[in-house]
Amino acid sequence: MSSTQELNLRVLGIRDPGRLQGLAARITEQISQGEQKPFQKVIDVSSGDPHRAGMPPLSFARQVLAACLYPELLKENRFPSDVRQRAQKLLGACNGGSVGSYSASSCGIPHIQKSVAEFITRRDSGVASDPENIIFSSGSQRTLMLFLHLLSSGQGLTQTAVLTPLPCPHSLPMLLDEVGVKQVPYQLLEEHGWATDLEELHRALKAARGHCEPRAIYISNPGNPTGHVQDLKTIQEVIRFATSERLILLVEEVYQDSVVGQEKKFLSYKKVLFEMGASYSETVEMVSFHSISAGTVGECGLRGGYMEVINMDPLVKNFLVSMQAPCSPPVLPQLALEIMVNPPSPGDASYELYTQEILQRVETLSQNAQRACEFLNDIPGMSCQHAMGGVFLYPRLDLPVQIIQEAEMSGLQADVLYCQKLLEEEGVCLGPGSENGHDDKNYHIRLCVLAPPAVLEDVLKRLRLFHLRIQDRHH
Amino acid sequence: MSSTQELNLRVLGIRDPGRLQGLAARITEQISQGEQKPFQKVIDVSSGDPHRAGMPPLSFARQVLAACLYPELLKENRFPSDVRQRAQKLLGACNGGSVGSYSASSCGIPHIQKSVAEFITRRDSGVASDPENIIFSSGSQRTLMLFLHLLSSGQGLTQTAVLTPLPCPHSLPMLLDEVGVKQVPYQLLEEHGWATDLEELHRALKAARGHCEPRAIYISNPGNPTGHVQDLKTIQEVIRFATSERLILLVEEVYQDSVVGQEKKFLSYKKVLFEMGASYSETVEMVSFHSISAGTVGECGLRGGYMEVINMDPLVKNFLVSMQAPCSPPVLPQLALEIMVNPPSPGDASYELYTQEILQRVETLSQNAQRACEFLNDIPGMSCQHAMGGVFLYPRLDLPVQIIQEAEMSGLQADVLYCQKLLEEEGVCLGPGSENGHDDKNYHIRLCVLAPPAVLEDVLKRLRLFHLRIQDRHH
Ligand SMILES: Cc1ncc(COP(=O)(O)O)c(C=O)c1O
Ligand SMILES: Cc1ncc(COP(=O)(O)O)c(C=O)c1O
Repeated sequence: MSSTQELNLRVLGIRDPGRLQGLAARITEQISQGEQKPFQKVIDVSSGDPHRAGMPPLSFARQVLAACLYPELLKENRFPSDVRQRAQKLLGACNGGSVGSYSASSCGIPHIQKSVAEFITRRDSGVASDPENIIFSSGSQRTLMLFLHLLSSGQGLTQTAVLTPLPCPHSLPMLLDEVGVKQVPYQLLEEHGWATDLEELHRALKAARGHCEPRAIYISNPGNPTGHVQDLKTIQEVIRFATSERLILLVEEVYQDSVVGQEKKFLSYKKVLFEMGASYSETVEMVSFHSISAGTVGECGLRGGYMEVINMDPLVKNFLVSMQAPCSPPVLPQLALEIMVNPPSPGDASYELYTQEILQRVETLSQNAQRACEFLNDIPGMSCQHAMGGVFLYPRLDLPVQIIQEAEMSGLQADVLYCQKLLEEEGVCLGPGSENGHDDKNYHIRLCVLAPPAVLEDVLKRLRLFHLRIQDRHH
Repeated sequence: MSSTQELNLRVLGIRDPGRLQGLAARITEQISQGEQKPFQKVIDVSSGDPHRAGMPPLSFARQVLAACLYPELLKENRFPSDVRQRAQKLLGACNGGSVGSYSASSCGIPHIQKSVAEFITRRDSGVASDPENIIFSSGSQRTLMLFLHLLSSGQGLTQTAVLTPLPCPHSLPMLLDEVGVKQVPYQLLEEHGWATDLEELHRALKAARGHCEPRAIYISNPGNPTGHVQDLKTIQEVIRFATSERLILLVEEVYQDSVVGQEKKFLSYKKVLFEMGASYSETVEMVSFHSISAGTVGECGLRGGYMEVINMDPLVKNFLVSMQAPCSPPVLPQLALEIMVNPPSPGDASYELYTQEILQRVETLSQNAQRACEFLNDIPGMSCQHAMGGVFLYPRLDLPVQIIQEAEMSGLQADVLYCQKLLEEEGVCLGPGSENGHDDKNYHIRLCVLAPPAVLEDVLKRLRLFHLRIQDRHH
């Protein structure tokens, strides 16, 4: 092992990202072997995995995929006509007419690159998207990893660095460690609903320069785990900042379909960039990430995502393609992406059911976010910013000093110990804020609210019971 | 970009692995737009992608996967009872009972790790396999990449290197470049059906030491693209060599189910290792790779594979796991792996159809390999070793000097130019031996023979026409 890898290992050892999931799995195993627990099963809402929490999949998507896997089903009238037509069309786009063949190119299936580019153009009121700029991989996080891998170089003072929000998505620190890129955190403003602050961006960059090589800024919008949705002014400011500081914009927009309430609308960075005129739209290097794992689709297990690269040197694009060459992206998740960007239209046989299912999800998400936020704010020692989008809430915790001391003695972060006890005592698995980059004095927990309302209710009640109990215990 | 990456870029630019596939796609596009060609469609047998060549998938596997994607199908009597039972069982092993949830661990789904370990133990007449040593990823090549990433370090004289067969699988050079590992080629003996030669291993290693850091030896058995199947004595020799030279064994055994004819049997390196006694079985570090892309299953587009790591330091295993953490492996291909290692048993509703489909594939493979080898040996200026396993033939070519000169002038390898002309004139896409590591004076081509017999016949006829034509042209 090289020394950086040994370093990685140590960092990962401390952070130990699988710790709570491992414990959850052990408890589930114990219950299945008849062991008595104060709860009947573990509920894990620590990551944005709606199917695990019991949200059903979208019928249209699953029917088309099932028919593509087993085309004999197309000979029957088992599925609605638009399902059959879509499956035929998608199979026609696969090599050899089969989902069992490698993708035609290591970027993905050309027909689906085209569909995604058309979706982006529609979304952005006509701003053009080039199919050749769409690169698929097994999950949007892998596309990010591919890109960072390209960016990563140097060590010490010359190490590539990326400006990252604090809090950031919980998988981001691992991912950056993995590719040897340093994090330069910029603090979001909790008391302003986790908004981005231009002065803080300048401060973070200035503090980092000379210690490493900041090359890009990462943005999560709608925000994971904050639920913040950026407005036009902020996006323009961030773009101007990135332009003048020559930073690549890495924009994670996987929750673009999950904005709740009427207050905010999702604006893509690309649309804003192109409305700022040619001096921006023709020069600023930007990558936007999207995924079938996120939001209303929620197909995390399929592993499909894409990045759109904008204003990238053709050499860089070629390199991204050749990096994936020995491991072309899986076919089925690309088909799922095509379905995500081209849902049934009015008049199609599946339109009504599809619309109903989507509305139900959006409503569940919106009501859950509202309900959970109010509930959490009513618990003494907790405060939660109102979420405008995405699938997470990220409440702040006051922890009794005894928990903090106990954690110190066992070499754990206090929020990790809190989540561990919650899991052991109540069977609820939430995410500790230290995974989202928060340090010792600033405790938060993360929970995904895209779950059936009854499941969420159960999570909230168990969390309150636990929280009151540990406060009581240490009084 | 760092300097290694710039270097990579140059290397990849020269090798240009997508060149022929790009050309094939363009020709297909031209035909679809009505352009006249001397053929009706392109047949691509350059890679081991049987579905692309028209081989049908296995019904049992596709039925189970379709039912897992759309569990409504389980409520009907549409599928045989064992399909329904298997689907239920597999869904039970998924988080939240859905293929749409992330895998429980970043190694994969524990239930399926266990199934694979049991399969290995059965295959190796009882040699134990620990489920925790099974690591899934989206394709076996990605698992290899993960492992090499861990191994890779140093530059110049200290750069990690791996001994690789010449010829090697065509994706291997790209993959090694990608992770910054140097290739140290050992020549296989063409005139002995591409057998491995112990003296040559020693020669290659000795020549490399002092110039780089050889850390592992890569073996492909049954051989890709050679079709050679190693015997007990060779495997023992290679193991002893790796042991005394302290090299990790990286054994690609993806064609273990594809041995043709009675002459040879597949022996796993692990079984042989464990029969050599504790001084070997408890110390030698080995990784074995397997895939659903290969052989009779041939599900390349799903992207599923695993590695079994043997005698690895727990630290190394932890590291492999955390490397995948942000990008857990896709769920459906893991289910396909479970089906591959647990096909229907006698008495099961699907047993008969399954057995028939497998037999048909094995027979097709065996007859095709035989037929193609004879056919190729009858073409003047071609000679082909007899294949004992795997899905490729790798005939040797005499090329007219004019082709070699033309290639030199256009900056191409002569075998690449040959394949390009073959594709343009006859619509047949084969793989040039330079992708398999062969250098200028030793021309070969690679073709996958797991295709419907009529397709293969067509390929062979067009190849002969072309080959005779260019020899004629240059007379
Ligand atoms: C920040 C962030 N990006 C992306 C994703 C989706 O990742 P992937 O497409 O790799 O499943 C998630 C999913 O939870 C996420 O939280
Ligand atoms: C040498 C070799 N290894 C592995 C594979 C399968 O790779 P994967 O499992 O990544 O599809 C192939 C497929 O053609 C191969 O040729």
